[in-house]
Amino acid sequence: MAGAQATVRGWVVHLRSSGKIAFIVMRDGTGLLQVVLVKSQVSPETWERFSQLTLETCLSVTGEVRSEPRAPGGFELGLRDLEVLGSSPIDYPIQPKEHGIDFLLDHRHLWLRSPRQVAILRIRHEIAQAIHDFFYARGFVHIDTPILTAAIGERSGLFQTEYFDEGVAYLAQTGQLYGEAAAAALGCIYTFGPTFRAEKSKTRRHLTEFWMIEPEMAFYDTHDSMRLQEDMLAHIVRRVLERRRPELQVLERDVAALERVRTPFPRIEYSDAVSILQTKGSAIQWGEDLGAEDESLLVEGHETPVFVCNYPKQAKAFYMKENPADPRTVLCDDCLAPEGYGEIIGGSQREDDHDKLVERIREEGLPLDAYGWYLDLRKYGTFVHSGYGLGLERTVAWICGTPHIRECAAFPRMMHRLRP
Amino acid sequence: MAGAQATVRGWVVHLRSSGKIAFIVMRDGTGLLQVVLVKSQVSPETWERFSQLTLETCLSVTGEVRSEPRAPGGFELGLRDLEVLGSSPIDYPIQPKEHGIDFLLDHRHLWLRSPRQVAILRIRHEIAQAIHDFFYARGFVHIDTPILTAAIGERSGLFQTEYFDEGVAYLAQTGQLYGEAAAAALGCIYTFGPTFRAEKSKTRRHLTEFWMIEPEMAFYDTHDSMRLQEDMLAHIVRRVLERRRPELQVLERDVAALERVRTPFPRIEYSDAVSILQTKGSAIQWGEDLGAEDESLLVEGHETPVFVCNYPKQAKAFYMKENPADPRTVLCDDCLAPEGYGEIIGGSQREDDHDKLVERIREEGLPLDAYGWYLDLRKYGTFVHSGYGLGLERTVAWICGTPHIRECAAFPRMMHRLRP
Repeated sequence: MAGAQATVRGWVVHLRSSGKIAFIVMRDGTGLLQVVLVKSQVSPETWERFSQLTLETCLSVTGEVRSEPRAPGGFELGLRDLEVLGSSPIDYPIQPKEHGIDFLLDHRHLWLRSPRQVAILRIRHEIAQAIHDFFYARGFVHIDTPILTAAIGERSGLFQTEYFDEGVAYLAQTGQLYGEAAAAALGCIYTFGPTFRAEKSKTRRHLTEFWMIEPEMAFYDTHDSMRLQEDMLAHIVRRVLERRRPELQVLERDVAALERVRTPFPRIEYSDAVSILQTKGSAIQWGEDLGAEDESLLVEGHETPVFVCNYPKQAKAFYMKENPADPRTVLCDDCLAPEGYGEIIGGSQREDDHDKLVERIREEGLPLDAYGWYLDLRKYGTFVHSGYGLGLERTVAWICGTPHIRECAAFPRMMHRLRP
Repeated sequence: MAGAQATVRGWVVHLRSSGKIAFIVMRDGTGLLQVVLVKSQVSPETWERFSQLTLETCLSVTGEVRSEPRAPGGFELGLRDLEVLGSSPIDYPIQPKEHGIDFLLDHRHLWLRSPRQVAILRIRHEIAQAIHDFFYARGFVHIDTPILTAAIGERSGLFQTEYFDEGVAYLAQTGQLYGEAAAAALGCIYTFGPTFRAEKSKTRRHLTEFWMIEPEMAFYDTHDSMRLQEDMLAHIVRRVLERRRPELQVLERDVAALERVRTPFPRIEYSDAVSILQTKGSAIQWGEDLGAEDESLLVEGHETPVFVCNYPKQAKAFYMKENPADPRTVLCDDCLAPEGYGEIIGGSQREDDHDKLVERIREEGLPLDAYGWYLDLRKYGTFVHSGYGLGLERTVAWICGTPHIRECAAFPRMMHRLRP
């Protein structure tokens, strides 16, 4: 490239001038470019145009590409001509200083242009593509399950909308039940779509709208499923390390911590987890779900994600298969990310016995008739199967090392955040 | 494989027996397997188990793999042992006979198991992966835009839900406006997600919930965008032809018609399209949008998709850029699939002039304050950009050759269809 003439379009990120020589740093969405103007070598009009530039002006620059080890990317552009494509008033809201989080979220459409946000979104994309590639290579079929559903699934925290003459439709919290039907048709499937929780939680790990990847595998038991989960996570981490180093660097992510992720991940039985937590001072009692604090305590000293397996029945959903070795528990796993990022996957073997499933639906007080089609899957050729749900934003948060998942979606939705 | 011992799990598709020799055709989601039992060579218990099999019984078979050119896939399994994993009552709803469409849709969770439905879903997946690969190779960033939005976009036909104390949220009909913000940050982006229309239309080309792919490209004009569209469609068609021949065969798709898809696609100016249609007997008048009938007339004699460009302003959305060559029209294109499958893409160059955009929002009677952040994109470094939306189910319908798009989603949602 060095020596070539080039025209580049982009936006102004940074300007400085000594009076005789000036620098423009531009971004075009793929990277940064340093542009150099020497007053004595450009026309007076060009120098004048430079002096009126502001942050986020959109411009086209033409000049000679030169090798410059100190510039971002190792090249700079010796400017010959400069054209302003879109001016930008001096009041551009996001300035190189500290802004409050509410201000930034109010200006999310502009905040996205910041290097940190660009890096997170690029890593999110790499993770998404890595997931598609992982399942494609294994012959899984990508299925889209419906968002608008008649009452089914978990019952609280549902958004609802009028649906013509059909009554109320609910926004899906999971595609799992549909995924199970598809697994009986296609063998191994996965979903990749948005899910919704109308919960009044204001933690750093909850969005009201978030993306989930939900594989469902015919003829996989809970152990097969955990092996798939760890292979998938290892694949994702490796892929981001291979292809998104510059972005991890922008985020100042401790990449060594990611490089230490190795399979197999430790499996800790829920009952053992409770004992460990109690010796570490947690107040958890057998039967209770793990809190965020418990999750952090449990992964202490582990360099890879950790599986917690076989929770008590009362802490988990009705569709999980009873554990033959201990019928107080179900065959399930939560996968906890290291470094305190908490649960990123929940999975289970599904109850494949028709009568036991009916019993569990009744015990939970769920409307049996709404589950007629789901029970059909146990009636006509029932089959051992397992599946899990990976939370995309939580996975992005872990890999990017961002403490709050609100930065891990382009336009995050939270209890008090519906705009822009 | 021939000569090897194998154990295969799957479901019964077809059974027949001569009394001495019997055949089971099984499916496992990836394909079909013919299993052969010779009464004299299996145990009486195994023969008895065979005689009690029904459609959709889930079973495990063990035996010797043999080359058999007449069997599906070129192999069959000489059965040694058979285990029933999940029985299936004799009343399995979907029998090898004609069923009405309402019955089939009521049993969509089981209908999915039919060879035709499996083929369509596999092709849908191939198209989805082809799209991801196409954009990944070009450096586009995959962005997820929000489903829950404050009032914006088109205004009629919106599903709505209560959103905590923020008032009403609408289910997005498009991610485009958000995609434009992301393009200013990342250069070229694309979305891949569900969109919603609460419209009382009962045509073979409308769903209330459907998936759209919406690329948005910084520094692309309308011509660049059309070149990208045709490259993308050609890539998708080529990919399905390369990798999903068996599925196209199940669907009895005329693959020669797909093989004739070549770039570039013809571009027909809207005004010329109206003249052509009028000579063909259409009642269309200049200013009106094309009807489904008009679309079919227009692609007659074309073997590839056709672009219709630069529609009258009043027929299109407010955000499309005025055509400098004819200000009655806007710089846009609809891409019509051949063989009468109709519009699959709508695209445009976006209005990048702040004041013209304000004028258009006012003309349409839209609430200016709701578009404040969208106008910011024209205020701070406005840029030439274009984008388009590809309807996934319509594209699947065209490539699969299915007349109604309800078969192109795993669980289609229509005006009278919210279940299962």
